[in-house]
Amino acid sequence: MIIDSIQNKHIKLIKKILTSKYQKKEQKYLIEGRNLVDEAIHYQEPLEILATEQAAAYLSGSTDHFTLISEQVAKYLSSTVTPEGIFAVMPIRQETPQPGNWLIFDELQDPGNAGTILRTADFFDYQGVFFSPKSVSPYSPKVLRSAQGSNFHLQVVIGPTMPFIEQLKSWGELVLGTTLHEQAKEVQDLDLNEPYALVLGNEGHGLSKEIGATIDENILIPTKGHAESLNVSVAAGILMYALNIINKN
Amino acid sequence: MIIDSIQNKHIKLIKKILTSKYQKKEQKYLIEGRNLVDEAIHYQEPLEILATEQAAAYLSGSTDHFTLISEQVAKYLSSTVTPEGIFAVMPIRQETPQPGNWLIFDELQDPGNAGTILRTADFFDYQGVFFSPKSVSPYSPKVLRSAQGSNFHLQVVIGPTMPFIEQLKSWGELVLGTTLHEQAKEVQDLDLNEPYALVLGNEGHGLSKEIGATIDENILIPTKGHAESLNVSVAAGILMYALNIINKN
Repeated sequence: MIIDSIQNKHIKLIKKILTSKYQKKEQKYLIEGRNLVDEAIHYQEPLEILATEQAAAYLSGSTDHFTLISEQVAKYLSSTVTPEGIFAVMPIRQETPQPGNWLIFDELQDPGNAGTILRTADFFDYQGVFFSPKSVSPYSPKVLRSAQGSNFHLQVVIGPTMPFIEQLKSWGELVLGTTLHEQAKEVQDLDLNEPYALVLGNEGHGLSKEIGATIDENILIPTKGHAESLNVSVAAGILMYALNIINKN
Repeated sequence: MIIDSIQNKHIKLIKKILTSKYQKKEQKYLIEGRNLVDEAIHYQEPLEILATEQAAAYLSGSTDHFTLISEQVAKYLSSTVTPEGIFAVMPIRQETPQPGNWLIFDELQDPGNAGTILRTADFFDYQGVFFSPKSVSPYSPKVLRSAQGSNFHLQVVIGPTMPFIEQLKSWGELVLGTTLHEQAKEVQDLDLNEPYALVLGNEGHGLSKEIGATIDENILIPTKGHAESLNVSVAAGILMYALNIINKN
């Protein structure tokens, strides 16, 4: 049996979990595309896989919860211009944060930046990425697309930021910020041991006042040219690289 | 007099220079938004400024070539969801590349990546960014938006790549690539003097064969985690930072 109507109730419910409101309510999210679905299956059992006949041919192995959909339904569910016709409904994992290197997003908004930073955090083997409630949802299609599956390789947690920062400090972790504070240091001048946490603020107005007050050390990347700042995902990448280097030395 | 019709011939011609074909033909491009127009005026005289009545109020100083437009026309010309109602037609500068640190785009496609990398190159005071003919146009609205005015601070050149690489070599510059070659080195293991050039390839398939063959040294960023690669603008940022650090030491 193939579902070929976008009026179908089941399909309408799945479409809804593309919004962060229903992700929260249902504790589910939708991923799209062959690479992401392959990666997902590797790490966690999907609640359901939906695919067009053509895309289903590429599915390796069998699955209990499979739904065949038409090209029209695939287009309806897709967040891309050229859908690959394969989707998976995933349960949101309830993660208990473990000690290790963490990134914290304090009201970070841009989904492309968030996903790119998730990918970089995975590249540098961070323990996890923590999303404050006012940050973009880690389960938004564009975040997941930019993250390229890295969300499956590290802990992804949404929650209130202050208690989490207190927990990090109780573990002895240093909390680093990126405010251009007069005492901000270059990374190589830090006296730092792993693990630590790096807090990234909003693209426009930086760290919130409340979170800014909890920062142990602010770090900066000195500019040589005319541009006064960097895109947040580039700055995050440079800082993760630099922090990794000084910890190796 | 205010132009309030999108059928207006002059407006239609300006709309056309949003495409790389007409940018090339007319040797002009369009920038949008208060910050970019302010930055442009600072560095180079615009051929024309177009603004709504409201946006014109913020214009500092007078200009000979000013056109008042309606909100409707501003919307028509805009590449953003919420237009600020101000635009400038800029002449494409004919640049003669000078020796210095260069970035070279070899078929780089994503405008967000290209603009972000321009901004980073400016931050690290590069001499310029060279766009191969098959790369995205440096004058596309999304490149200019992501670059945040950095295109005015460095040389921006479009042209055939091979003669430019030959010129760099004739100046004694080392040409660095990012192919995962078996002899690729970590940046800190390089024996490098400024100036140098860093070539970045296509997001999907990396460096073209022809350009790959001209590379003096390939450099890599070692991964610690599961993600095997980084977004190209993050990788470029890390490499520019690392190359800058070893040149300071």
